[in-house]
Amino acid sequence: MILHEKISAQLPAWRERTKVLAKDHADVVVDDVTVGQIVGGMRDIKSLLTDISYVDSAEGIRLRGMSIPEVLKRLPRARGNKMPLVGGLYYLLLVGEIPSMEEAMAVEDEWDKRAEIPDYVYKMLKSMPKDTHPMILLTQAVMSLGVNSSFAKKYKEGMKKEAYWEPALEDSLDLTAKLPVIAAFIYRYKYFGEKRKPRYYTKLDYGANFARMMKTADKKQYAELSRLYFILHSDHESGNVSAHATHLVGSSLADIYFAFSAGLAGLAGPLHGLANQECLAWYREVLERFNGVPTRDDLYKFAWDTLNSGKVIPGYGHAVLRVPDPRFIAFMEFGRTNFPDDELIRLADMVFDVVPTVLKEQGKAKNPAPNFDAASGVMQYHYGVRNFEFYTVLFGVGRALGVTANYVWARALGQPLERPKSVTTKMLEDAVAEVKGRVNT
Amino acid sequence: MILHEKISAQLPAWRERTKVLAKDHADVVVDDVTVGQIVGGMRDIKSLLTDISYVDSAEGIRLRGMSIPEVLKRLPRARGNKMPLVGGLYYLLLVGEIPSMEEAMAVEDEWDKRAEIPDYVYKMLKSMPKDTHPMILLTQAVMSLGVNSSFAKKYKEGMKKEAYWEPALEDSLDLTAKLPVIAAFIYRYKYFGEKRKPRYYTKLDYGANFARMMKTADKKQYAELSRLYFILHSDHESGNVSAHATHLVGSSLADIYFAFSAGLAGLAGPLHGLANQECLAWYREVLERFNGVPTRDDLYKFAWDTLNSGKVIPGYGHAVLRVPDPRFIAFMEFGRTNFPDDELIRLADMVFDVVPTVLKEQGKAKNPAPNFDAASGVMQYHYGVRNFEFYTVLFGVGRALGVTANYVWARALGQPLERPKSVTTKMLEDAVAEVKGRVNT
Repeated sequence: MILHEKISAQLPAWRERTKVLAKDHADVVVDDVTVGQIVGGMRDIKSLLTDISYVDSAEGIRLRGMSIPEVLKRLPRARGNKMPLVGGLYYLLLVGEIPSMEEAMAVEDEWDKRAEIPDYVYKMLKSMPKDTHPMILLTQAVMSLGVNSSFAKKYKEGMKKEAYWEPALEDSLDLTAKLPVIAAFIYRYKYFGEKRKPRYYTKLDYGANFARMMKTADKKQYAELSRLYFILHSDHESGNVSAHATHLVGSSLADIYFAFSAGLAGLAGPLHGLANQECLAWYREVLERFNGVPTRDDLYKFAWDTLNSGKVIPGYGHAVLRVPDPRFIAFMEFGRTNFPDDELIRLADMVFDVVPTVLKEQGKAKNPAPNFDAASGVMQYHYGVRNFEFYTVLFGVGRALGVTANYVWARALGQPLERPKSVTTKMLEDAVAEVKGRVNT
Repeated sequence: MILHEKISAQLPAWRERTKVLAKDHADVVVDDVTVGQIVGGMRDIKSLLTDISYVDSAEGIRLRGMSIPEVLKRLPRARGNKMPLVGGLYYLLLVGEIPSMEEAMAVEDEWDKRAEIPDYVYKMLKSMPKDTHPMILLTQAVMSLGVNSSFAKKYKEGMKKEAYWEPALEDSLDLTAKLPVIAAFIYRYKYFGEKRKPRYYTKLDYGANFARMMKTADKKQYAELSRLYFILHSDHESGNVSAHATHLVGSSLADIYFAFSAGLAGLAGPLHGLANQECLAWYREVLERFNGVPTRDDLYKFAWDTLNSGKVIPGYGHAVLRVPDPRFIAFMEFGRTNFPDDELIRLADMVFDVVPTVLKEQGKAKNPAPNFDAASGVMQYHYGVRNFEFYTVLFGVGRALGVTANYVWARALGQPLERPKSVTTKMLEDAVAEVKGRVNT
């Protein structure tokens, strides 16, 4: 398999670099830890290691060193389409290079072979109450696939540490192949009462298959959106909760099904995966209030009213970025190109123009730029996927691409158990007293 | 409810302390981060905050400031028994004080009211293949209970931040009440083919109920063991994978069912939850090899043989502790008191005498002391629970007590989203080059 060969070839050099750091330079100090960072939730403590993506506050995410526009431009495209093949993106994350069309298709072919879902998974999902949240269902489905984990099987049989990454890759390909099928089943089952398995077309690529299985009205454009959507949601370095939880659980040598189910559980948290729904709800509120897209002045006033009533404007005021999230820009371009007359995209554009200004005038938000949640929900809504609670499932399908790539590399490089240290409130107070005491003497 | 009142009364003072640290002393430096710590998996980076337990390398775990012998001595005991009530331990973790008998019983009564499992949970578990690992089943069951999360419901309805901890406590009581029932069902269903729901006796305490539902031969002593087992497995500060994953996922404001299912996924990892099985397997190997308990000299030689063949002796050579794990000591005492003639406990005692000496002579292990895995499996084995893969489920039932207590307090103190920063290999190499460059000039 091409992925296996390509990763194999790179391993000796990467292992050597990791070894040199661990053996020869372990004592080099890279960062401080302050009271504020501990009380603030490990806030920005340099403590995780990944070479797959990096978020720069001045320019947003880079995947394998490449900016989002570069990734979208350079990855091979599905035939007759403008958006890249998702298989190409997965190749990029795993191998670190832009694949040829043939290499991207090799990943798509691997997925084709692995997309079949065992019957018990459907049975298990159907045993749950009708009103179960789709993220509970998705997490349970991922757990249930763990029954067939290659990694767990090989580990139990006894496997050398150097070989861990190989069944990890097998499992990751299996999981990412099956996720869109499960997601589409949950969607059609939960919101349309369809009990049949989704039909998977091996001749179609990842995005087109997903559009078929979701049965949206405009399958061709929804396939394009799906490619873009999964690519943009794939990876955002390792400190976000879904990536971190996957890594943390994986570091105990749990298989990817356990590890990614932890990641999904984190994604289900409102602070992580709910922002896109909240943005969309705010847009809908504006449209209803003004019976359509408001004038610029009306929106300016409404934004101020929102802030003055003590609320926030969801999706704006980024925690890290000082520029608009490049993933936001990519989504907005997709919307402007494909459905420029849609009320929501026109409103989103106006909000993008008005809200950062209002936030700057208010002076509270450090970074008034939007993150991608301010656009992602608009995309789904336009194509008729309007069950807001389902959006996190779509996020999860995309996120799997990044976190499984990280999981494979963590095993390949022998990354150890993650084990930070706890302190108590009293210890922090003592540390403060010591420092302040020193200052006073 | 007593827990609610007691926590409520303490909140203003704790919130003030947290606020003072965050507002007035955020910049005080507490620790460094080195290359070795990042490559080593956040190794010992002071970065998590908990007041519920702390592991001191010189003496082992303290729960709410109390050592294990102190906890076992001071907690109220089940009538006519020597082991403390699990409800008293949960009170201690949540409230921070040793409860009266009445207060401990109040927690036990709360559990009684909440132990009923909805039918769909059993149906869901039965839909899975027969050979499904019990940790997959347990994790799925916990996820499935999330359908009725108070926290998720209240959050959706709109709830003030100050109130988060209240439904968090409701959910935590529900979850900890139901876990032993689910664990016992999985055990009887998977290994004995029993399809009926376990029968729960509201007149019995947590430990006694568990023994009844497990249907072990010696129910009275197994109840005693269960009390001890759950108490000793409850909490071990916040940096271990199960505690950390629960905290991390909870920090995104996911409900405890999502959060703890992530914790269980972490516990399922061989490096975290498998050590007890591996210790027991090694003991069994010794007993078979020597057709019973060997002589001290034979064991000494066999231990050296194990090390010389490149293997480790599981359970010995602790990563943190410089003394025998006090939880190990407590288990061994239980064994010596209740089944002194058992081959396994006699062997475990001899291993405890011989192996640290051998490890010191070899000189590789920094700390030759045993951790509690070197004893915990022996306890279960003696009472007939011999499905090794099930031991992690028992660990999980105990661990829930600690991590849910932490979850409640994290919400009560408004602990924010956990969000550390990633670096790349290149960045670490650059940091090294900079420091070494400075040294050379």
